[in-house]
Amino acid sequence: MMTTSLDHLIYVLGKLPGLGPRSARRVALTLLQKKHQVMEPLMSALQDVHRDVKSCSLCGNWDVCDPCAICESPLRDSSVLCVVEDVADLWALERSRAFKGLYHVLGGTLSALDGVRPSDLRLDSLIKRVETQQVAEVILALGATVEGQTTAHYVIEKLENLPLKLTRLAHGLPVGGELDYLDDGTLTAALLARRAAC
Amino acid sequence: MMTTSLDHLIYVLGKLPGLGPRSARRVALTLLQKKHQVMEPLMSALQDVHRDVKSCSLCGNWDVCDPCAICESPLRDSSVLCVVEDVADLWALERSRAFKGLYHVLGGTLSALDGVRPSDLRLDSLIKRVETQQVAEVILALGATVEGQTTAHYVIEKLENLPLKLTRLAHGLPVGGELDYLDDGTLTAALLARRAAC
Repeated sequence: MMTTSLDHLIYVLGKLPGLGPRSARRVALTLLQKKHQVMEPLMSALQDVHRDVKSCSLCGNWDVCDPCAICESPLRDSSVLCVVEDVADLWALERSRAFKGLYHVLGGTLSALDGVRPSDLRLDSLIKRVETQQVAEVILALGATVEGQTTAHYVIEKLENLPLKLTRLAHGLPVGGELDYLDDGTLTAALLARRAAC
Repeated sequence: MMTTSLDHLIYVLGKLPGLGPRSARRVALTLLQKKHQVMEPLMSALQDVHRDVKSCSLCGNWDVCDPCAICESPLRDSSVLCVVEDVADLWALERSRAFKGLYHVLGGTLSALDGVRPSDLRLDSLIKRVETQQVAEVILALGATVEGQTTAHYVIEKLENLPLKLTRLAHGLPVGGELDYLDDGTLTAALLARRAAC
Protein backbone atom coordinates (compact mmCIF):
# COMPACT_ATOMS: atom_id res chain seq x y z
CA MET A 1 0.00 0.00 0.00
CA MET A 2 1.26 3.42 -0.83
CA THR A 3 2.05 5.90 1.89
CA THR A 4 1.41 9.62 1.93
CA SER A 5 4.95 10.83 1.19
CA LEU A 6 5.52 8.13 -1.42
CA ASP A 7 2.11 8.87 -2.96
CA HIS A 8 3.05 12.52 -3.12
CA LEU A 9 6.38 11.80 -4.81
CA ILE A 10 4.60 9.68 -7.45
CA TYR A 11 2.09 12.50 -7.98
CA VAL A 12 4.88 15.08 -8.45
CA LEU A 13 6.87 12.75 -10.76
CA GLY A 14 3.70 12.20 -12.82
CA LYS A 15 3.58 15.92 -13.59
CA LEU A 16 6.92 15.78 -15.45
CA PRO A 17 6.71 15.73 -19.26
CA GLY A 18 6.58 12.22 -20.70
CA LEU A 19 5.72 10.56 -17.38
CA GLY A 20 2.26 9.21 -16.54
CA PRO A 21 1.04 7.52 -13.34
CA ARG A 22 2.51 4.14 -14.26
CA SER A 23 5.96 5.39 -15.27
CA ALA A 24 5.98 7.69 -12.21
CA ARG A 25 5.43 4.62 -9.98
CA ARG A 26 8.25 2.83 -11.80
CA VAL A 27 10.59 5.79 -11.33
CA ALA A 28 9.67 6.05 -7.61
CA LEU A 29 10.41 2.34 -7.07
CA THR A 30 13.75 2.66 -8.88
CA LEU A 31 14.63 5.64 -6.69
CA LEU A 32 13.83 3.65 -3.53
CA GLN A 33 15.64 0.52 -4.71
CA LYS A 34 18.73 2.47 -5.79
CA LYS A 35 18.94 5.03 -3.01
CA HIS A 36 22.72 5.46 -3.22
CA GLN A 37 23.19 5.01 -6.96
CA VAL A 38 20.21 7.06 -8.23
CA MET A 39 18.14 8.84 -5.58
CA GLU A 40 20.95 10.65 -3.76
CA PRO A 41 22.78 11.73 -6.95
CA LEU A 42 19.44 13.05 -8.26
CA MET A 43 18.77 14.96 -5.03
CA SER A 44 22.19 16.63 -5.05
CA ALA A 45 22.04 17.35 -8.81
CA LEU A 46 18.66 19.03 -8.28
CA GLN A 47 20.06 21.08 -5.38
CA ASP A 48 23.07 22.19 -7.47
CA VAL A 49 20.91 23.20 -10.43
CA HIS A 50 18.35 24.91 -8.20
CA ARG A 51 21.08 26.96 -6.52
CA ASP A 52 23.36 27.71 -9.49
CA VAL A 53 21.49 27.75 -12.78
CA LYS A 54 19.77 30.97 -13.81
CA SER A 55 18.35 32.46 -16.98
CA CYS A 56 20.81 34.60 -18.99
CA SER A 57 19.51 38.19 -18.91
CA LEU A 58 20.74 38.75 -22.49
CA CYS A 59 19.68 35.68 -24.49
CA GLY A 60 17.44 33.67 -22.13
CA ASN A 61 19.64 30.55 -22.10
CA TRP A 62 20.13 28.63 -18.82
CA ASP A 63 23.62 28.80 -17.31
CA VAL A 64 25.52 29.08 -14.03
CA CYS A 65 26.70 32.57 -14.98
CA ASP A 66 24.84 35.64 -16.22
CA PRO A 67 25.53 36.58 -19.03
CA CYS A 68 25.81 32.93 -20.11
CA ALA A 69 28.94 31.27 -21.53
CA ILE A 70 27.73 31.74 -25.12
CA CYS A 71 27.00 35.47 -24.71
CA GLU A 72 30.36 35.95 -22.96
CA SER A 73 32.44 33.89 -25.40
CA PRO A 74 34.98 35.90 -27.45
CA LEU A 75 34.85 33.12 -30.07
CA ARG A 76 31.21 33.81 -31.02
CA ASP A 77 30.17 36.24 -33.74
CA SER A 78 28.07 38.83 -31.96
CA SER A 79 26.86 40.38 -35.22
CA VAL A 80 24.56 37.40 -35.94
CA LEU A 81 21.56 36.74 -33.70
CA CYS A 82 19.60 33.49 -33.96
CA VAL A 83 16.02 33.77 -32.64
CA VAL A 84 14.70 30.48 -31.22
CA GLU A 85 11.47 29.47 -29.52
CA ASP A 86 12.96 27.87 -26.41
CA VAL A 87 16.18 26.64 -24.81
CA ALA A 88 15.61 23.11 -26.18
CA ASP A 89 15.93 24.55 -29.71
CA LEU A 90 19.06 26.48 -28.69
CA TRP A 91 20.59 23.23 -27.39
CA ALA A 92 19.62 21.42 -30.64
CA LEU A 93 21.43 24.09 -32.69
CA GLU A 94 24.46 23.93 -30.38
CA ARG A 95 24.63 20.16 -30.83
CA SER A 96 24.73 20.65 -34.62
CA ARG A 97 27.83 22.89 -34.18
CA ALA A 98 26.68 24.72 -37.31
CA PHE A 99 26.10 28.14 -35.73
CA LYS A 100 28.76 30.38 -34.22
CA GLY A 101 26.73 33.54 -33.50
CA LEU A 102 24.61 34.48 -30.48
CA TYR A 103 21.06 33.42 -29.59
CA HIS A 104 17.86 35.04 -28.43
CA VAL A 105 15.30 32.78 -26.75
CA LEU A 106 11.70 34.03 -27.20
CA GLY A 107 10.31 31.71 -24.54
CA GLY A 108 7.43 30.45 -26.67
CA THR A 109 5.40 31.21 -29.79
CA LEU A 110 2.39 33.45 -30.29
CA SER A 111 -0.78 31.42 -29.95
CA ALA A 112 -4.33 32.75 -29.77
CA LEU A 113 -5.47 29.28 -28.67
CA ASP A 114 -3.11 29.09 -25.68
CA GLY A 115 -3.43 32.82 -24.94
CA VAL A 116 0.25 33.60 -25.62
CA ARG A 117 0.49 37.30 -26.56
CA PRO A 118 3.52 39.32 -27.77
CA SER A 119 3.99 40.70 -24.24
CA ASP A 120 4.48 37.13 -22.95
CA LEU A 121 7.55 36.64 -25.18
CA ARG A 122 11.03 38.17 -24.86
CA LEU A 123 10.39 40.50 -27.84
CA ASP A 124 11.17 43.87 -26.23
CA SER A 125 14.61 42.66 -25.18
CA LEU A 126 15.18 41.33 -28.73
CA ILE A 127 14.40 44.74 -30.26
CA LYS A 128 16.55 46.48 -27.65
CA ARG A 129 19.47 44.12 -28.34
CA VAL A 130 19.17 44.60 -32.09
CA GLU A 131 19.02 48.39 -31.71
CA THR A 132 21.86 48.79 -29.19
CA GLN A 133 24.27 46.06 -30.31
CA GLN A 134 26.01 45.84 -33.67
CA VAL A 135 23.68 43.21 -35.18
CA ALA A 136 24.06 42.65 -38.93
CA GLU A 137 21.79 39.61 -39.29
CA VAL A 138 18.85 38.09 -37.43
CA ILE A 139 18.11 34.43 -38.25
CA LEU A 140 14.56 33.35 -37.42
CA ALA A 141 15.03 29.70 -36.44
CA LEU A 142 11.38 29.09 -35.54
CA GLY A 143 9.42 25.89 -36.15
CA ALA A 144 7.57 25.35 -39.42
CA THR A 145 4.28 25.25 -37.52
CA VAL A 146 1.39 27.70 -37.69
CA GLU A 147 2.45 29.25 -34.36
CA GLY A 148 6.12 29.37 -35.36
CA GLN A 149 5.36 31.09 -38.66
CA THR A 150 2.90 33.54 -37.03
CA THR A 151 5.62 34.47 -34.55
CA ALA A 152 8.20 34.81 -37.35
CA HIS A 153 5.91 37.23 -39.21
CA TYR A 154 5.41 39.27 -36.07
CA VAL A 155 9.17 39.49 -35.44
CA ILE A 156 9.77 40.44 -39.10
CA GLU A 157 7.20 43.27 -38.81
CA LYS A 158 8.97 44.58 -35.73
CA LEU A 159 12.49 44.43 -37.25
CA GLU A 160 12.06 45.05 -40.99
CA ASN A 161 12.67 48.80 -40.74
CA LEU A 162 16.02 48.35 -39.01
CA PRO A 163 19.24 48.24 -41.08
CA LEU A 164 19.92 44.49 -40.87
CA LYS A 165 19.49 41.26 -42.81
CA LEU A 166 16.50 39.12 -41.77
CA THR A 167 16.72 35.44 -42.69
CA ARG A 168 14.89 32.21 -41.83
CA LEU A 169 15.90 28.53 -41.92
CA ALA A 170 15.52 26.81 -45.31
CA HIS A 171 12.63 24.41 -45.81
CA GLY A 172 13.44 21.19 -47.61
CA LEU A 173 14.26 17.50 -47.39
CA PRO A 174 15.68 16.37 -44.04
CA VAL A 175 19.18 14.97 -44.59
CA GLY A 176 18.87 11.20 -44.83
CA GLY A 177 15.14 11.51 -45.58
CA GLU A 178 13.36 9.78 -48.42
CA LEU A 179 11.05 11.56 -50.86
CA ASP A 180 8.38 8.90 -50.51
CA TYR A 181 7.91 9.64 -46.79
CA LEU A 182 7.76 13.44 -47.07
CA ASP A 183 4.58 15.42 -46.72
CA ASP A 184 3.34 17.45 -49.70
CA GLY A 185 4.10 20.79 -48.04
CA THR A 186 7.78 19.99 -47.50
CA LEU A 187 8.09 18.53 -50.99
CA THR A 188 6.56 21.64 -52.54
CA ALA A 189 8.82 23.91 -50.48
CA ALA A 190 11.90 21.87 -51.42
CA LEU A 191 10.95 22.01 -55.09
CA LEU A 192 10.31 25.77 -55.08
CA ALA A 193 13.60 26.43 -53.25
CA ARG A 194 15.64 24.22 -55.61
CA ARG A 195 19.19 25.29 -56.30
CA ALA A 196 21.76 24.67 -59.01
CA ALA A 197 23.21 21.18 -58.53
CA CYS A 198 26.70 22.13 -59.60
CA MET B 1 25.30 25.59 -24.23
CA MET B 2 24.89 23.18 -21.33
CA THR B 3 26.68 23.78 -18.07
CA THR B 4 28.33 21.24 -15.80
CA SER B 5 25.63 21.03 -13.10
CA LEU B 6 22.81 21.08 -15.66
CA ASP B 7 24.63 18.46 -17.75
CA HIS B 8 24.98 16.32 -14.65
CA LEU B 9 21.27 16.62 -13.80
CA ILE B 10 20.36 15.54 -17.36
CA TYR B 11 22.77 12.61 -17.06
CA VAL B 12 21.22 11.50 -13.74
CA LEU B 13 17.65 11.94 -15.06
CA GLY B 14 18.58 9.86 -18.12
CA LYS B 15 19.35 6.92 -15.84
CA LEU B 16 15.72 6.72 -14.62
CA PRO B 17 13.57 3.99 -16.19
CA GLY B 18 11.72 5.17 -19.29
CA LEU B 19 13.84 8.30 -19.75
CA GLY B 20 16.47 8.66 -22.47
CA PRO B 21 18.77 11.60 -23.21
CA ARG B 22 16.10 13.55 -25.10
CA SER B 23 13.33 13.14 -22.51
CA ALA B 24 15.86 13.85 -19.72
CA ARG B 25 16.66 17.20 -21.37
CA ARG B 26 12.93 17.92 -21.64
CA VAL B 27 12.39 17.11 -17.95
CA ALA B 28 15.39 19.30 -16.95
CA LEU B 29 14.01 22.26 -18.93
CA THR B 30 10.57 21.81 -17.37
CA LEU B 31 12.16 21.75 -13.90
CA LEU B 32 14.03 25.01 -14.62
CA GLN B 33 11.02 26.71 -16.18
CA LYS B 34 8.70 25.68 -13.36
CA LYS B 35 11.00 26.07 -10.38
CA HIS B 36 8.21 26.83 -7.90
CA GLN B 37 5.48 24.60 -9.33
CA VAL B 38 7.54 21.48 -10.14
CA MET B 39 11.23 21.59 -9.14
CA GLU B 40 10.80 22.60 -5.50
CA PRO B 41 7.88 20.20 -4.82
CA LEU B 42 9.95 17.40 -6.39
CA MET B 43 12.98 18.27 -4.23
CA SER B 44 10.98 18.26 -1.02
CA ALA B 45 9.06 15.11 -1.99
CA LEU B 46 12.38 13.36 -2.62
CA GLN B 47 13.71 14.55 0.74
CA ASP B 48 10.58 13.29 2.55
CA VAL B 49 10.71 9.89 0.88
CA HIS B 50 14.47 9.59 1.38
CA ARG B 51 14.10 10.34 5.08
CA ASP B 52 10.89 8.46 5.89
CA VAL B 53 10.31 5.51 3.58
CA LYS B 54 11.94 2.22 4.44
CA SER B 55 11.56 -1.42 3.50
CA CYS B 56 9.20 -3.43 5.75
CA SER B 57 11.30 -6.04 7.56
CA LEU B 58 8.42 -8.54 7.39
CA CYS B 59 7.05 -8.35 3.84
CA GLY B 60 9.50 -6.12 1.94
CA ASN B 61 6.93 -3.42 1.04
CA TRP B 62 7.94 0.27 1.15
CA ASP B 63 6.34 2.30 3.93
CA VAL B 64 7.01 5.05 6.48
CA CYS B 65 6.66 2.54 9.32
CA ASP B 66 8.23 -0.87 9.94
CA PRO B 67 6.31 -3.23 9.98
CA CYS B 68 4.33 -1.60 7.16
CA ALA B 69 0.68 -0.56 7.34
CA ILE B 70 -0.48 -3.77 5.62
CA CYS B 71 1.46 -6.07 8.00
CA GLU B 72 0.21 -4.07 11.01
CA SER B 73 -3.43 -3.82 9.89
CA PRO B 74 -5.92 -5.74 12.09
CA LEU B 75 -8.25 -5.87 9.08
CA ARG B 76 -5.94 -8.11 7.04
CA ASP B 77 -6.07 -11.91 7.18
CA SER B 78 -2.62 -12.94 8.44
CA SER B 79 -3.24 -16.60 7.65
CA VAL B 80 -2.93 -15.96 3.88
CA LEU B 81 0.43 -14.91 2.42
CA CYS B 82 0.71 -13.66 -1.17
CA VAL B 83 4.21 -14.05 -2.64
CA VAL B 84 5.03 -11.39 -5.26
CA GLU B 85 8.10 -10.60 -7.30
CA ASP B 86 8.42 -6.91 -6.43
CA VAL B 87 6.64 -3.98 -4.80
CA ALA B 88 5.16 -2.87 -8.15
CA ASP B 89 3.24 -6.19 -8.22
CA LEU B 90 2.14 -5.69 -4.60
CA TRP B 91 0.80 -2.23 -5.52
CA ALA B 92 -0.98 -3.70 -8.58
CA LEU B 93 -2.73 -6.26 -6.34
CA GLU B 94 -3.62 -3.57 -3.80
CA ARG B 95 -5.17 -1.46 -6.57
CA SER B 96 -7.37 -4.42 -7.56
CA ARG B 97 -8.69 -4.54 -3.93
CA ALA B 98 -9.21 -8.29 -4.42
CA PHE B 99 -6.77 -9.49 -1.75
CA LYS B 100 -7.11 -9.00 2.00
CA GLY B 101 -4.22 -11.12 3.30
CA LEU B 102 -0.55 -10.25 3.78
CA TYR B 103 2.24 -10.09 1.22
CA HIS B 104 5.79 -11.32 0.86
CA VAL B 105 7.99 -9.52 -1.68
CA LEU B 106 10.73 -11.78 -3.10
CA GLY B 107 12.66 -8.90 -4.62
CA GLY B 108 13.04 -10.52 -8.04
CA THR B 109 12.82 -13.86 -9.83
CA LEU B 110 15.38 -16.63 -10.24
CA SER B 111 17.28 -16.12 -13.46
CA ALA B 112 20.38 -17.99 -14.61
CA LEU B 113 20.81 -15.38 -17.34
CA ASP B 114 20.89 -12.41 -14.97
CA GLY B 115 22.72 -14.37 -12.27
CA VAL B 116 19.85 -14.12 -9.74
CA ARG B 117 20.23 -17.05 -7.31
CA PRO B 118 17.93 -18.22 -4.48
CA SER B 119 20.17 -16.44 -1.96
CA ASP B 120 19.51 -13.10 -3.74
CA LEU B 121 15.77 -13.39 -3.04
CA ARG B 122 13.91 -13.00 0.27
CA LEU B 123 13.28 -16.77 0.45
CA ASP B 124 14.72 -17.52 3.90
CA SER B 125 12.49 -14.92 5.50
CA LEU B 126 9.50 -16.38 3.62
CA ILE B 127 10.20 -19.87 5.00
CA LYS B 128 10.76 -18.44 8.48
CA ARG B 129 7.48 -16.50 8.31
CA VAL B 130 5.56 -19.55 7.12
CA GLU B 131 7.08 -21.73 9.87
CA THR B 132 6.66 -19.32 12.77
CA GLN B 133 3.39 -17.56 11.90
CA GLN B 134 0.01 -19.24 11.58
CA VAL B 135 -0.02 -19.40 7.77
CA ALA B 136 -2.76 -21.55 6.27
CA GLU B 137 -2.24 -20.61 2.61
CA VAL B 138 0.56 -19.26 0.44
CA ILE B 139 -0.53 -17.76 -2.89
CA LEU B 140 2.21 -17.63 -5.52
CA ALA B 141 1.35 -14.47 -7.46
CA LEU B 142 4.31 -14.61 -9.81
CA GLY B 143 4.29 -13.58 -13.46
CA ALA B 144 3.52 -16.14 -16.18
CA THR B 145 7.05 -15.77 -17.53
CA VAL B 146 9.79 -18.43 -17.59
CA GLU B 147 11.55 -16.75 -14.65
CA GLY B 148 8.29 -16.33 -12.71
CA GLN B 149 7.33 -19.97 -13.15
CA THR B 150 10.87 -21.21 -12.33
CA THR B 151 10.72 -19.17 -9.14
CA ALA B 152 7.24 -20.52 -8.36
CA HIS B 153 8.49 -24.10 -8.69
CA TYR B 154 11.45 -23.35 -6.44
CA VAL B 155 9.18 -21.86 -3.76
CA ILE B 156 6.79 -24.84 -4.06
CA GLU B 157 9.73 -27.25 -3.51
CA LYS B 158 10.72 -25.37 -0.37
CA LEU B 159 7.20 -25.19 1.09
CA GLU B 160 5.39 -28.35 -0.10
CA ASN B 161 6.24 -30.37 3.01
CA LEU B 162 4.76 -27.79 5.37
CA PRO B 163 1.13 -28.13 6.53
CA LEU B 164 -0.37 -25.38 4.37
CA LYS B 165 -2.26 -24.85 1.14
CA LEU B 166 -0.08 -23.76 -1.78
CA THR B 167 -1.94 -21.98 -4.56
CA ARG B 168 -1.03 -19.99 -7.63
CA LEU B 169 -2.91 -17.36 -9.64
CA ALA B 170 -5.29 -18.81 -12.22
CA HIS B 171 -4.37 -18.76 -15.84
CA GLY B 172 -6.07 -15.89 -17.41
CA LEU B 173 -2.80 -14.06 -17.21
CA PRO B 174 -1.59 -13.57 -20.76
CA VAL B 175 1.44 -15.88 -21.22
CA GLY B 176 4.59 -13.77 -21.28
CA GLY B 177 2.79 -10.93 -19.49
CA GLU B 178 3.82 -9.24 -16.28
CA LEU B 179 1.55 -8.60 -13.30
CA ASP B 180 2.16 -4.88 -13.18
CA TYR B 181 0.73 -4.46 -16.72
CA LEU B 182 -2.56 -6.24 -16.01
CA ASP B 183 -5.90 -4.50 -15.67
CA ASP B 184 -7.71 -4.78 -12.33
CA GLY B 185 -10.50 -7.00 -13.71
CA THR B 186 -8.14 -9.67 -15.03
CA LEU B 187 -6.13 -9.51 -11.82
CA THR B 188 -9.27 -10.00 -9.71
CA ALA B 189 -10.46 -12.91 -11.87
CA ALA B 190 -7.07 -14.60 -11.66
CA LEU B 191 -6.99 -14.18 -7.90
CA LEU B 192 -10.49 -15.61 -7.39
CA ALA B 193 -9.79 -18.64 -9.64
CA ARG B 194 -6.55 -19.67 -7.89
CA ARG B 195 -5.85 -23.42 -7.78
CA ALA B 196 -3.84 -25.90 -5.69
CA ALA B 197 -0.16 -25.75 -6.72
CA CYS B 198 0.59 -29.44 -6.35
